[in-house]
Amino acid sequence: MNVKITGSGHYIPDRIETAYQVAQKINKSADWIISRTGVKNRRISDIDVDEMGALAARGALKGSSKPDLIINASGVPKQTIPDTSVFIQKALGFKGIPSFSIHSTCLSFLTAFNTASSLIHSKQYQKILIVSSDRGSIGRNFNEPESAALLGDAAAAIMVEPSTESKVISHKMETWSEGALFTQVRGGGTYRHPDNPETIDADHYFTMSGPNVYKMARKKVYYMIQNILKENSLTAKDINFVIPHQASNTAIQAYSKFGGFPEHKVMNIISDYGNCVSASIPLALSLAIRENKIKRGDIVLIIGTGAGLSVSASLIKF
Amino acid sequence: MNVKITGSGHYIPDRIETAYQVAQKINKSADWIISRTGVKNRRISDIDVDEMGALAARGALKGSSKPDLIINASGVPKQTIPDTSVFIQKALGFKGIPSFSIHSTCLSFLTAFNTASSLIHSKQYQKILIVSSDRGSIGRNFNEPESAALLGDAAAAIMVEPSTESKVISHKMETWSEGALFTQVRGGGTYRHPDNPETIDADHYFTMSGPNVYKMARKKVYYMIQNILKENSLTAKDINFVIPHQASNTAIQAYSKFGGFPEHKVMNIISDYGNCVSASIPLALSLAIRENKIKRGDIVLIIGTGAGLSVSASLIKF
Repeated sequence: MNVKITGSGHYIPDRIETAYQVAQKINKSADWIISRTGVKNRRISDIDVDEMGALAARGALKGSSKPDLIINASGVPKQTIPDTSVFIQKALGFKGIPSFSIHSTCLSFLTAFNTASSLIHSKQYQKILIVSSDRGSIGRNFNEPESAALLGDAAAAIMVEPSTESKVISHKMETWSEGALFTQVRGGGTYRHPDNPETIDADHYFTMSGPNVYKMARKKVYYMIQNILKENSLTAKDINFVIPHQASNTAIQAYSKFGGFPEHKVMNIISDYGNCVSASIPLALSLAIRENKIKRGDIVLIIGTGAGLSVSASLIKF
Repeated sequence: MNVKITGSGHYIPDRIETAYQVAQKINKSADWIISRTGVKNRRISDIDVDEMGALAARGALKGSSKPDLIINASGVPKQTIPDTSVFIQKALGFKGIPSFSIHSTCLSFLTAFNTASSLIHSKQYQKILIVSSDRGSIGRNFNEPESAALLGDAAAAIMVEPSTESKVISHKMETWSEGALFTQVRGGGTYRHPDNPETIDADHYFTMSGPNVYKMARKKVYYMIQNILKENSLTAKDINFVIPHQASNTAIQAYSKFGGFPEHKVMNIISDYGNCVSASIPLALSLAIRENKIKRGDIVLIIGTGAGLSVSASLIKF
């Protein structure tokens, strides 16, 4: 699919919360947090996901005319109805642009990028804005120290357009529902509605069984890397740069330790921003573009895992 | 885009709630409900959206091998994370099939159908299962009589595959965010999180300004019908059958009164099932197929409105 990322932008909230500050809330030490998660600082947003997303989108739209489709690709919505894309469009001051949401938690951006590429390839749209915006800080359960220490807030956005040079070489996704309960926010829907007498406070917070996720994900990700390289007659050496989901420092390091990619070719921003749910991948991508770590023509592997448990990878010629 | 609906199915809960029964809860008469909304009976589900969706999916999958992609296209999720597609896959007993959610409230099915058609056209997938499942009864606010009287529960599903005969002729969508606050469930996300002191009970229920929606939607829908017909050199007479979203009886009748389609060509199931949010369109479609109201080769217009306010239409050769 011949598409090009023609713009990228991000919104990083000003307010920093240090490991030391989080340590007070979870009754652990800053060293415990840093050794377990790798997250020294995370950002806390004082504005909601739609405004965060609109600020990121303005960066992606710079110098560009308005998009003909807006896809919100976030992990947690602003509200149940309408979907967040509507509020992002409203915050951007646009009218009449078709907009909807795609949700696959931390992989929402990757799913939306493949979908957008397909919609462009089939000539449905020409200029698609994808926005991922998550405010994980609101869902932190301080009684669950490790996941609470991981989460941070951010938004990032890209513009996708037709191209003659750039392309999506290959895209893969697998969802293994035996891992459905490893990562959850149980509330917010029909299952643990506030009217349900079984609903408890913890249902409204993020919960994750880190060891279960890591154990299952490591193997699935390993095989996906081997397959996507093999099917495209490539080796790890042919990949110019890797943009992984920023799940945890251990998860990112696994791309070097087991995946065969040298550390300097793997974007790692977990120390400064934590796990920003759906925004982690596009934020890492937007920063890598800004820091000239990726240049036109490079073969880039964008890869990650999400609640589900899902594993996904896109091999692109940037 | 050359795609065919190769299977369809639905799940209609057994339990009927009559206008008389709802009347007791909202302090109005059964006649008031029927004259305002057109809904005589609605169904109330005792199982959750994932199980409802899986039952509908089994109908769509009949005699077919397993899908290579599952798209959940529902208005309200089971829980915030993971997205509902994971739970539908789990309830179906499948493993490893990529799955994600598309959300544009009552238009989720139409958005997912166009997206699936594009994914098939660009050869990303071959057998896509789309499931819409909504349990609006849980979100009824009995202090808001009209919207509470409208909602009902149902699920419906279709299979989409490549074709040489059938196709999507044209697809349109517009989102007018000046109508973002006309139809809402404010809770369930970052805006009115249970920890927010401003959050009130009503935030967890469906709220709609019916007159505002109708006033805005009627014009937008009228122009969309005129445009989609004109751009494809068709007139209303060329359309064999219309599948509208079951927003309200007034909204459905407007397709005849203003849209130019005779009543016998417009699927109207609102009296028996109410407004089933995202499931209304595929339920109407699945029932129309079963009742032989649509046959292969027919030109079918699938059309509706959703929170946003969004308007969308797909013209298909069935």
